[in-house]
Amino acid sequence: MKLDPIATLQLQLARLPGIGPRSAARLAFYIIKTSQAQGKNANLAEDLAQSLLDVQKEVRLCRECQNLCTEEYCSICRDPRRDQSTLCVVEAVPDMQALEKSGTFRGLYHVLHGVLAPLEGVGPEELKLEYLLDRTKNKSVEEVIIATNANVDGDATALYLASLLEPQELRITRLAMGVPLGSELEYLDSATLSRALLERKDMVNT
Amino acid sequence: MKLDPIATLQLQLARLPGIGPRSAARLAFYIIKTSQAQGKNANLAEDLAQSLLDVQKEVRLCRECQNLCTEEYCSICRDPRRDQSTLCVVEAVPDMQALEKSGTFRGLYHVLHGVLAPLEGVGPEELKLEYLLDRTKNKSVEEVIIATNANVDGDATALYLASLLEPQELRITRLAMGVPLGSELEYLDSATLSRALLERKDMVNT
Repeated sequence: MKLDPIATLQLQLARLPGIGPRSAARLAFYIIKTSQAQGKNANLAEDLAQSLLDVQKEVRLCRECQNLCTEEYCSICRDPRRDQSTLCVVEAVPDMQALEKSGTFRGLYHVLHGVLAPLEGVGPEELKLEYLLDRTKNKSVEEVIIATNANVDGDATALYLASLLEPQELRITRLAMGVPLGSELEYLDSATLSRALLERKDMVNT
Repeated sequence: MKLDPIATLQLQLARLPGIGPRSAARLAFYIIKTSQAQGKNANLAEDLAQSLLDVQKEVRLCRECQNLCTEEYCSICRDPRRDQSTLCVVEAVPDMQALEKSGTFRGLYHVLHGVLAPLEGVGPEELKLEYLLDRTKNKSVEEVIIATNANVDGDATALYLASLLEPQELRITRLAMGVPLGSELEYLDSATLSRALLERKDMVNT
């Protein structure tokens, strides 16, 4: 027997991360309410369904950097103005977008789509690291910036990557860690503060 | 030019209530990630899209009580064991589901699909109150329980409904207000406490 479509929608919405049964019910009723009404949101269910199907059908991984895109190569890899000598390794696409938004990096990316997490069964094979090594070997890459997250898994992955890349004659760097801009020391966690102290920078050349 | 499907999905998700641009981006990436992978969630995008389309196509309002259903009449109105003499008026379908879950009410419902809110342009016409009056006139209804929310709009709607229904010879009641079960007085708001005091009940018949 087919389930009630309202209950089905609630179940499907509850599969999304951070959406529990109550939120799913609220969202489902909102969707149904707008699709019953004639307002500007009346096409919400259809539009959302269509874009879900579009994403499923059209989005794939860039053959070069593993970014999400709809072509064979993503727009960054296709851009001839990007600096081909610097490769920034990130855990996931949102990280890459955050870096792009900063407007500071003009090189190319490499998306790992994950991070080493032995306890969850994610080892070097799952991250397809050979492919990254091939990229750094064959191309005109001079520097690899490791931009994994500043947590335990990100640290472990960064160290592992650095050891993998060491034999290749490359500059290997990692994002600076310290006090985030606009923050007040009073409210900062002690791990960040202690890192900022240890890695303090000279302000005057002596 | 067609927008990037990932950006489109993020925009569509952000149309849902309580989902801002950042949550929408997170959800979109989760959906894309699962649809790229081969795990148990790989069909999430498709399933969700299908259930959105199903809901849009199949769900309509019960001709009797305005509940959401897939048939002409909802399962409650079709149930001959329900008490036809009591009508419970609620603002919305989730309210009705909450009452059903309590297991105490065996009568029929009437869903207003809204509440009087003059400031937002919701007047008696928008709630189709004539239809409720027809129901209470023509049927064997003896009691109308007004179960609108215990807030300003719910109160105003309840008072308005009571005045509309007064000419018909009906018992008109409203849900009891007071201390919710399992709560501690120390943490209760003073409006609830003062209502509970004013409407205190005799424990011993004198």
